[in-house]
Amino acid sequence: MEKTKENTICSISTKQGEGAIAIIRISGTKATSICKKIFSSKKLKKISDLKENRIYYGKITDGKKIIDEVVLTYFKSPKSYTGEDVIEISCHGSEYIQETIIQLLIKNGCSLAKRGEFTLRAFLNGKLDLSQAESVANLIGSKNEKSHHLAMKQMRGGYSEKIKSLRDRLIKFGALIELELDFSTEDVEFANREELVELLSLMKTKITPLIESFKYGNAIKNGIPITIVGPPNSGKSTLLNKILNEERAIVSNIKGTTRDVIEEIFTLEGFQFRFIDTAGLRKTSNEIEKIGIKKTYEKINEAAIIIYVFDINDFNENQITKDIISVLKKDIELILIANKIDLKKKELNIKKIKEKIIYGSILKNEGVKEILSSILQKTRKWENINQDFVITNQRHFEALTNTLKSLESIKKGIYSNISGELLAIDIKEALQFLGEITGEITNEDLLDSIFKDFCIGK
Amino acid sequence: MEKTKENTICSISTKQGEGAIAIIRISGTKATSICKKIFSSKKLKKISDLKENRIYYGKITDGKKIIDEVVLTYFKSPKSYTGEDVIEISCHGSEYIQETIIQLLIKNGCSLAKRGEFTLRAFLNGKLDLSQAESVANLIGSKNEKSHHLAMKQMRGGYSEKIKSLRDRLIKFGALIELELDFSTEDVEFANREELVELLSLMKTKITPLIESFKYGNAIKNGIPITIVGPPNSGKSTLLNKILNEERAIVSNIKGTTRDVIEEIFTLEGFQFRFIDTAGLRKTSNEIEKIGIKKTYEKINEAAIIIYVFDINDFNENQITKDIISVLKKDIELILIANKIDLKKKELNIKKIKEKIIYGSILKNEGVKEILSSILQKTRKWENINQDFVITNQRHFEALTNTLKSLESIKKGIYSNISGELLAIDIKEALQFLGEITGEITNEDLLDSIFKDFCIGK
Repeated sequence: MEKTKENTICSISTKQGEGAIAIIRISGTKATSICKKIFSSKKLKKISDLKENRIYYGKITDGKKIIDEVVLTYFKSPKSYTGEDVIEISCHGSEYIQETIIQLLIKNGCSLAKRGEFTLRAFLNGKLDLSQAESVANLIGSKNEKSHHLAMKQMRGGYSEKIKSLRDRLIKFGALIELELDFSTEDVEFANREELVELLSLMKTKITPLIESFKYGNAIKNGIPITIVGPPNSGKSTLLNKILNEERAIVSNIKGTTRDVIEEIFTLEGFQFRFIDTAGLRKTSNEIEKIGIKKTYEKINEAAIIIYVFDINDFNENQITKDIISVLKKDIELILIANKIDLKKKELNIKKIKEKIIYGSILKNEGVKEILSSILQKTRKWENINQDFVITNQRHFEALTNTLKSLESIKKGIYSNISGELLAIDIKEALQFLGEITGEITNEDLLDSIFKDFCIGK
Repeated sequence: MEKTKENTICSISTKQGEGAIAIIRISGTKATSICKKIFSSKKLKKISDLKENRIYYGKITDGKKIIDEVVLTYFKSPKSYTGEDVIEISCHGSEYIQETIIQLLIKNGCSLAKRGEFTLRAFLNGKLDLSQAESVANLIGSKNEKSHHLAMKQMRGGYSEKIKSLRDRLIKFGALIELELDFSTEDVEFANREELVELLSLMKTKITPLIESFKYGNAIKNGIPITIVGPPNSGKSTLLNKILNEERAIVSNIKGTTRDVIEEIFTLEGFQFRFIDTAGLRKTSNEIEKIGIKKTYEKINEAAIIIYVFDINDFNENQITKDIISVLKKDIELILIANKIDLKKKELNIKKIKEKIIYGSILKNEGVKEILSSILQKTRKWENINQDFVITNQRHFEALTNTLKSLESIKKGIYSNISGELLAIDIKEALQFLGEITGEITNEDLLDSIFKDFCIGK
């Protein structure tokens, strides 16, 4: 793979649109020579006088008229974000000015940067590994304390070093086994099989918790999914509204009002939650409602926490018991709410339910606080995990899961005394999966798929 | 008026929201000491080592954890935008990070900047005059070449200097007349009345074109208003759609379809136009339609150009003639279109209309090009004005109009030999109006009303 790109790229790097100021970023070997054509400053006789890490007031002109008075900053290669020569132009945030400067840069030889292309170059020039590069997008996308914390950890190295060091040790064994193959007629064993098995065990103990952390990491990154379920007209949408403190879901006392699955983001003490309101669970002949109920069951499977709401005045004990048992099976946290206690006419008596029940009247805000603190308690319990090493990335999760499979395969191979050739293949496979995480092994498709989700200008 | 403010202000200065990078700006005497508490850099032992116009890589921390890795730039007073110590923090554009840094700054002693407060301080510290400060908002709001050009002229001085120099000369006369009052018993005349009349004439010849330029300047800044009028069902909405190349107005062949006034922005060769589609002009008993037709007449008065469309197959000669004469009276440019020539059944024969008529079939795109070039031609003709000195600002327009009235009053006073006291009052009034433009004379209400429309962070 080419380590630097020939062309010089430019992009608006601040959020698109009108603001007080905007930043235009240029990266590449021609950054200074292109800027020379459009920028002039009293402090600079010629653009080659530019000193790194300094700022320069000056004018951007199109040859005829002044486009803007700007501040230009020069970051000299390799001490820049991309590792290339980088110039940042801080201009007035008019959309017209931003677009005109970009057009001028393109006219003078820049290409418009693709999404994430600055960070891609930083990776290609060895300023970041691939896992760190990915974390830049996560960092920018972070909307709360917890997801910010995980992204920052990852950007500053995170588990990359750990994985690199394990991979390096496995590489050595791989090389020794390859060497054995060169001497295959002599039946020598350069790679100590016992030591290799030891390394495999060590790798397993390091990788397994990372894989297990993904459920947590993914939830932190994308929001912890909480599904609100229960019989029709038990107060599910009212609960969602109380939590969000707004009339998001259409509330009525007509059974089956909520047909679509409604999803809302909510941040509580640094955690982001995705609340999912669902259609009431009941037998129905209405085709549209049936689809809603089907979706509810899908959402139950995705949830980290289920809030089960039922009407204390009107419930079917068998149905509730059945619903709850099906949830408990799935290893999902459960919060059980007996709603509408203000209308209560009869005593509660559900023999088969052993779970703690929160009694409340959601409409009257009774019990809502208790529900929220129960959510936090269950989230914190679940958070008891080594936060320094949390996987938030589907791609890493898959690569590590595949690595673990390869490691098992190597181990099995050793125990069953398979040939060095076959062992070498398994080791190569494991090295491939690990290498994909930090980017020692990449291909264009992989890079494309990673950087296409970046924001423009990063 | 206080020339500096005690408090140190901060704000996000790039467009609010998630972007690749964001800039947070801090201004005031405590800028460095506040940043010291949250910023650390390997290159800096202590924050007092900060050198002006340099950038520093480093970390923002809240004491416990890293919020972001940032680039900090230091602009030392008075060589900064506001004239005060200014620090800019370039951080990752996550909304969480931006908000957290702002919160940290506030926690450590910053105040959140009000709209335009950085520019207000620049004005208060003498970095810009008031007219230049206003142009900063115009520059940021500029969306096309022409409005950008006018704002840039104004920001770089524009007619401020001219007004200041005229005002200075008038101040001298005012002072001499005040002096006469001190010696009033002696009946001396320090201020040469002939020279004063000469100055008044000069001022009139300078100020009048500025006032006249406002119609153009205002149109360039806010879009040149073009109103499309004509009898019902003549093809007005179809024309708007063809020009905009999209189905913005609901088109039907039912008379009275367009009841609301529809306004659309359109840029053509650097000019911005505001196209205004109106209800068809006809007698109607429908109350809602009546309101629409009343609005049409209002829009006719505001227009710079009227496009009058009628159906060549179905028109009332008297009505058209009447409509057109009423437009011509108002000194508004007129473009006359005979539409639907493809359906033409009879010869056109309107005796009383001497205007050039564009024949076309708008629905079939015939004549649309001709209409657009006619618009541009009329705009260019109207643009033949000294572009170096164009008023774009309602406030300046009013101040100059009032100045002119005061000047007339002074002149009349001199000719009718009024007392020095009364002359001095008129001169003071003229100086007041002129001073308000460049900000030699201000008050808090005036400043508030100017800066409240600025974007945040500027």
